[in-house]
Amino acid sequence: MAGSSYGNQLGITTWGESHGPGIGVVLDGFPAGMNLCEEDIQKYLDRRKPGQSAATTSRKEADLVEILSGVFEGRTTGTPISLMVKNTAQHSADYEDIAHYYRPGHADYTFDMKYGFRDYRGGGRSSGRETIGRVAAGAVCAKLLSEMGVLLCAYTRSIGSVCMDEQHFDAAQILKSPSGMPDADADARAMAYIASCREHQDSVGGVIECRIDGVPAGIGDPVFRKLDAMLADAVMGIGAVKAVEIGDGCLVSGLLGSEDNDCFYAEDGHIAKSTNHAGGIMGGISDGSRILLRCHVKPTPSISQTQKTVTQSGEPVDVNIHGRHDPVVVPRAVVVVESMCAITILDAMMANMTAKASYLTDFYCKKR
Amino acid sequence: MAGSSYGNQLGITTWGESHGPGIGVVLDGFPAGMNLCEEDIQKYLDRRKPGQSAATTSRKEADLVEILSGVFEGRTTGTPISLMVKNTAQHSADYEDIAHYYRPGHADYTFDMKYGFRDYRGGGRSSGRETIGRVAAGAVCAKLLSEMGVLLCAYTRSIGSVCMDEQHFDAAQILKSPSGMPDADADARAMAYIASCREHQDSVGGVIECRIDGVPAGIGDPVFRKLDAMLADAVMGIGAVKAVEIGDGCLVSGLLGSEDNDCFYAEDGHIAKSTNHAGGIMGGISDGSRILLRCHVKPTPSISQTQKTVTQSGEPVDVNIHGRHDPVVVPRAVVVVESMCAITILDAMMANMTAKASYLTDFYCKKR
Amino acid sequence: MAGSSYGNQLGITTWGESHGPGIGVVLDGFPAGMNLCEEDIQKYLDRRKPGQSAATTSRKEADLVEILSGVFEGRTTGTPISLMVKNTAQHSADYEDIAHYYRPGHADYTFDMKYGFRDYRGGGRSSGRETIGRVAAGAVCAKLLSEMGVLLCAYTRSIGSVCMDEQHFDAAQILKSPSGMPDADADARAMAYIASCREHQDSVGGVIECRIDGVPAGIGDPVFRKLDAMLADAVMGIGAVKAVEIGDGCLVSGLLGSEDNDCFYAEDGHIAKSTNHAGGIMGGISDGSRILLRCHVKPTPSISQTQKTVTQSGEPVDVNIHGRHDPVVVPRAVVVVESMCAITILDAMMANMTAKASYLTDFYCKKR
Amino acid sequence: MAGSSYGNQLGITTWGESHGPGIGVVLDGFPAGMNLCEEDIQKYLDRRKPGQSAATTSRKEADLVEILSGVFEGRTTGTPISLMVKNTAQHSADYEDIAHYYRPGHADYTFDMKYGFRDYRGGGRSSGRETIGRVAAGAVCAKLLSEMGVLLCAYTRSIGSVCMDEQHFDAAQILKSPSGMPDADADARAMAYIASCREHQDSVGGVIECRIDGVPAGIGDPVFRKLDAMLADAVMGIGAVKAVEIGDGCLVSGLLGSEDNDCFYAEDGHIAKSTNHAGGIMGGISDGSRILLRCHVKPTPSISQTQKTVTQSGEPVDVNIHGRHDPVVVPRAVVVVESMCAITILDAMMANMTAKASYLTDFYCKKR
Repeated sequence: MAGSSYGNQLGITTWGESHGPGIGVVLDGFPAGMNLCEEDIQKYLDRRKPGQSAATTSRKEADLVEILSGVFEGRTTGTPISLMVKNTAQHSADYEDIAHYYRPGHADYTFDMKYGFRDYRGGGRSSGRETIGRVAAGAVCAKLLSEMGVLLCAYTRSIGSVCMDEQHFDAAQILKSPSGMPDADADARAMAYIASCREHQDSVGGVIECRIDGVPAGIGDPVFRKLDAMLADAVMGIGAVKAVEIGDGCLVSGLLGSEDNDCFYAEDGHIAKSTNHAGGIMGGISDGSRILLRCHVKPTPSISQTQKTVTQSGEPVDVNIHGRHDPVVVPRAVVVVESMCAITILDAMMANMTAKASYLTDFYCKKR
Repeated sequence: MAGSSYGNQLGITTWGESHGPGIGVVLDGFPAGMNLCEEDIQKYLDRRKPGQSAATTSRKEADLVEILSGVFEGRTTGTPISLMVKNTAQHSADYEDIAHYYRPGHADYTFDMKYGFRDYRGGGRSSGRETIGRVAAGAVCAKLLSEMGVLLCAYTRSIGSVCMDEQHFDAAQILKSPSGMPDADADARAMAYIASCREHQDSVGGVIECRIDGVPAGIGDPVFRKLDAMLADAVMGIGAVKAVEIGDGCLVSGLLGSEDNDCFYAEDGHIAKSTNHAGGIMGGISDGSRILLRCHVKPTPSISQTQKTVTQSGEPVDVNIHGRHDPVVVPRAVVVVESMCAITILDAMMANMTAKASYLTDFYCKKR
Repeated sequence: MAGSSYGNQLGITTWGESHGPGIGVVLDGFPAGMNLCEEDIQKYLDRRKPGQSAATTSRKEADLVEILSGVFEGRTTGTPISLMVKNTAQHSADYEDIAHYYRPGHADYTFDMKYGFRDYRGGGRSSGRETIGRVAAGAVCAKLLSEMGVLLCAYTRSIGSVCMDEQHFDAAQILKSPSGMPDADADARAMAYIASCREHQDSVGGVIECRIDGVPAGIGDPVFRKLDAMLADAVMGIGAVKAVEIGDGCLVSGLLGSEDNDCFYAEDGHIAKSTNHAGGIMGGISDGSRILLRCHVKPTPSISQTQKTVTQSGEPVDVNIHGRHDPVVVPRAVVVVESMCAITILDAMMANMTAKASYLTDFYCKKR
Repeated sequence: MAGSSYGNQLGITTWGESHGPGIGVVLDGFPAGMNLCEEDIQKYLDRRKPGQSAATTSRKEADLVEILSGVFEGRTTGTPISLMVKNTAQHSADYEDIAHYYRPGHADYTFDMKYGFRDYRGGGRSSGRETIGRVAAGAVCAKLLSEMGVLLCAYTRSIGSVCMDEQHFDAAQILKSPSGMPDADADARAMAYIASCREHQDSVGGVIECRIDGVPAGIGDPVFRKLDAMLADAVMGIGAVKAVEIGDGCLVSGLLGSEDNDCFYAEDGHIAKSTNHAGGIMGGISDGSRILLRCHVKPTPSISQTQKTVTQSGEPVDVNIHGRHDPVVVPRAVVVVESMCAITILDAMMANMTAKASYLTDFYCKKR
């Protein structure tokens, strides 16, 4: 499959440009018989909606999802689930001025180099709106995962140098915080920092973290489909992400073996680890502990300061990018990270159904 | 395909356990007509050979590659290239004691949870020897890339807190340094640090960096097969890697947009960037600048200090892991990183051959 | 990818049920820069429209295609082309009676066995309407193929025992014949035969043939992606097809080697074959001759004669399937065969762009 | 993956040329914990060994399989199973004369057109020896299938015009008959026919049939991974096969709906069909009846009669292909058909483990 598809047994294919008729996703390979309605998906999409606070653009996007296939009488049918969000608030005229030069930090230049031209309206295919498809599919996967006992929780860990305090972690705060932080105090400081950056016509980056609880030991493959490699692919594939860490992540390069190794112990006949430096994955396979992932998101490239760039024909030009842009991508990207992790984890858990010959012989003997 | 295969148009499938008859790889989809001999591959494999310095195990492994198929009269035939290295220095008896407990920091436990049992000899499939297949395939890909003008250069950036000095970067030093550093002075300090860790029965991690020069703008896909996502998958899929960064990587979360954006300029009709915070990839597609990737490698989990763990049946046990283990994985993993990057870049450049309709019409009209 | 996706470099994913909001396809990996408008696709869809003659159902289906993404300013962008046809003429009420029993010759029973339940309205996902997505994608691929010098021509070869006469082959007749035959005389006899079957409340099968001209020698792979194997997959994957033949097809089992071998000769420095028993494919790879494929299509299973079957709970029941059903699937399936062949051939020609190392070195050296 | 890999969850990659060091296969994704030894595989390989009767070449090929990975203490480990057969009886010198011209009916010309040159020794990659890898992998899959209650039985249906008599079907006869027929009388006539063809320096084709019993209803996908489409791909991908039929196959084009439909009935609470025209697959999904597949195999192209062809440079030349060639491919291809079907069916049954959400929730709840 080509580059707009993701997944192995479960497959998603996203389509759509920022200013075309709509944005969508086809989720294929999803199991039959799960209850699903638009509201299950809409509540995820609403988490990435702009216009909700000073941290996000003032554009209004209704972003209402329609289920076009794959659900009958309220249940998934096992056939492709096609989901679409119509583009309604897009004004192509706003973007005509950017058609002829290359915005710094954007994909304008690389699209032209690859394809010879591009849909320049609002970033076209490279727009953040493409993630609508990922979030819609992620919502469906997260629902089945929750029925399987797996819970994902992504949140903003830091904005610029403002970091949440682990001691104050409060999951209930995440959706309340405009920054997406699970810590009301840090959220307030982050929002103040964002406001000051916006005042200086600048933008800011941050860190998103995702905790995944309830994945049993044994999920993932030992060589190329390592669970951490698949998660890295999933999350690095989100625009603006420039680094991905699992567990202690970058810290491990400075640790000693005696500090980094997680020791095993047994309690009530159940084997567990006394620490979790590994972030729940050893040798590419889940170990039953919490899976912990972190990614670093760059500042929004669209800033209204004057920047130097060139036109398509190579003429130097000074640009000031006005328009309704988020000064920070992080808060809206939190649900995208959670969604990509959900798709990846469900796919890996599906693959695991055939890890042992006895799973197959038991299943098919029971069927007779 | 299942979890021991990697790649899209180009596909590699590695096989083999540490203590079985051999280790190998099948490289399928490789273009016909390139000159190839065992020596082209052997020189890469020799870079991951142990026993070359105090930084690596004293085990002797000849690791001689045999080409079993896909090369005829000195040229690749376009059909699968099967490469094998026989296991010769393996002593299964050494490992019988580890058959019944779970080594901290290793994949013993997760393999058992996934598959119900495991080949415990030397780590079996999770042994570092599996990377022989990756390096052998990587050597073949790197050869074609060099004919296409693409050069890869991986090296050790840091060991523990000992970091190379960018000002002293000397590519010729990399293969001479036991640590893999391109800086003789830092190498000496790193080796001293490793020796002291070994004395304390401990191990140490580090950072590997890879520079990829000569990739033209336009390589990679804009959504799920982003070039950075594919590289992250490739490198996070190497055992012991816990974080991957592209360009400024983790730093971007603390930068302002005005600091992080790379500005374009034109020189002699050629468009370039004045900085390269993006590490050569924008919107998932190469921009023609140097591609820069960094990964964080954890300390070798095998240490001879006493560690607490449990047996398969959950009994607590104190273990001291003796044997011929590297106190640091980093120096031998450098060529593995370079190899995985080579496979990934070649695969993406192959995919790019069909990015424009005119590429196809020109090619097939010329053929007539 | 899961079961509603097809293709390797080029990928199509179809979605939609007969009586849901619509039917669609996402075509990913299609090259950038080809002119494309709705009319290019509509003319293919119109070839599978019902209600055009006595051979087809009297249902009216407008089946107007909308391009939802992947085309900008009249050209393909290289990003996914999402195509949708809204379902407008569907009356769910018509089908409520078939919800509870298993129609002979249909997929009702097998869907229930696989998924536990099914969208019973009009066959749901197993409806012939699913092929709208294939034809829409096929139209796009056929357009690029024609620019590459490749022409596909599918037609009805026989209906029941009424077979076209090769001597009277007239391509211009295909779209004029209600039966899809390239022979006006045979068409008249076929239509009379269909009418008589309909009178007897019965249905009838037939043979569809596809000629593919202009494929250069060298397309396809020698082992598992043999061009004939891919075409067999493509065409056997069309509902109601029960056999696929390449070249002399079934006849070869009764031939001698001296009869079946095609001999080579040279003319004006160009190598050709004096016969084409192989149907243009030798060892899985095109030989530059016409590619010839034939498939056998079963009679429409929906007939209004009384048939014996059972309900979901196993109660015996006599059914008479009324409704607006084609007495023969063949004429409308002709364009589906042509479309699936177009997708397959384009995909194989795309893959071939990297068959030789020199293709890559030439391409990338030219780029510099 | 590229063209020497086959399968979805289960993947096989074959490698090797007729006259290289060996021939092999890597089977990845195979479940852990099945007992497996070389003898399980060898007995399948022995069925394709030549030199056993007048129907096959007098070449002696030991073709002993070695398990290089993926089996530990007699059980599959869940990691790639690498199997190799060394080439021992090959004499490259025999083939030097065919290096410079294109044999009629062979892939010599198409290989040169695709790759620019070819390993001409014994057909190289297009040799029938490539199927050793398929049979070795098929033996492993068939073993697990038999533990799941699925039995495959392939045999020769006809040689030239000599056809077995269904009334005399005797499975025990298949391995005893040099022709592979399950009917001793027809076998004798077939062998006489083959002998007479050989006398006339000619070769002959035939039909292979495969019965697959025990596949439960519900296996396969409804759109592109239809079980029949996957089987057609699998079997058409065997060299020399030019047509594939499922169930009534080619006959359906001449049947009426009332003749072709299979009616359902219930017995002891179990739903079954009174006929099996469909060959066990409806709408791409198994219906619980016997799966029946038939393929048409062309005559061996290597005949010692004088044939006209050209050299690589286009010079006309008369050739007489001497050497140790089978006058018929069919008897040795029987086990290849059975093997490809085994791989395909197991792969589809593995995919089916995730068809329903309840399969996943039950499985993972049981695990806790």
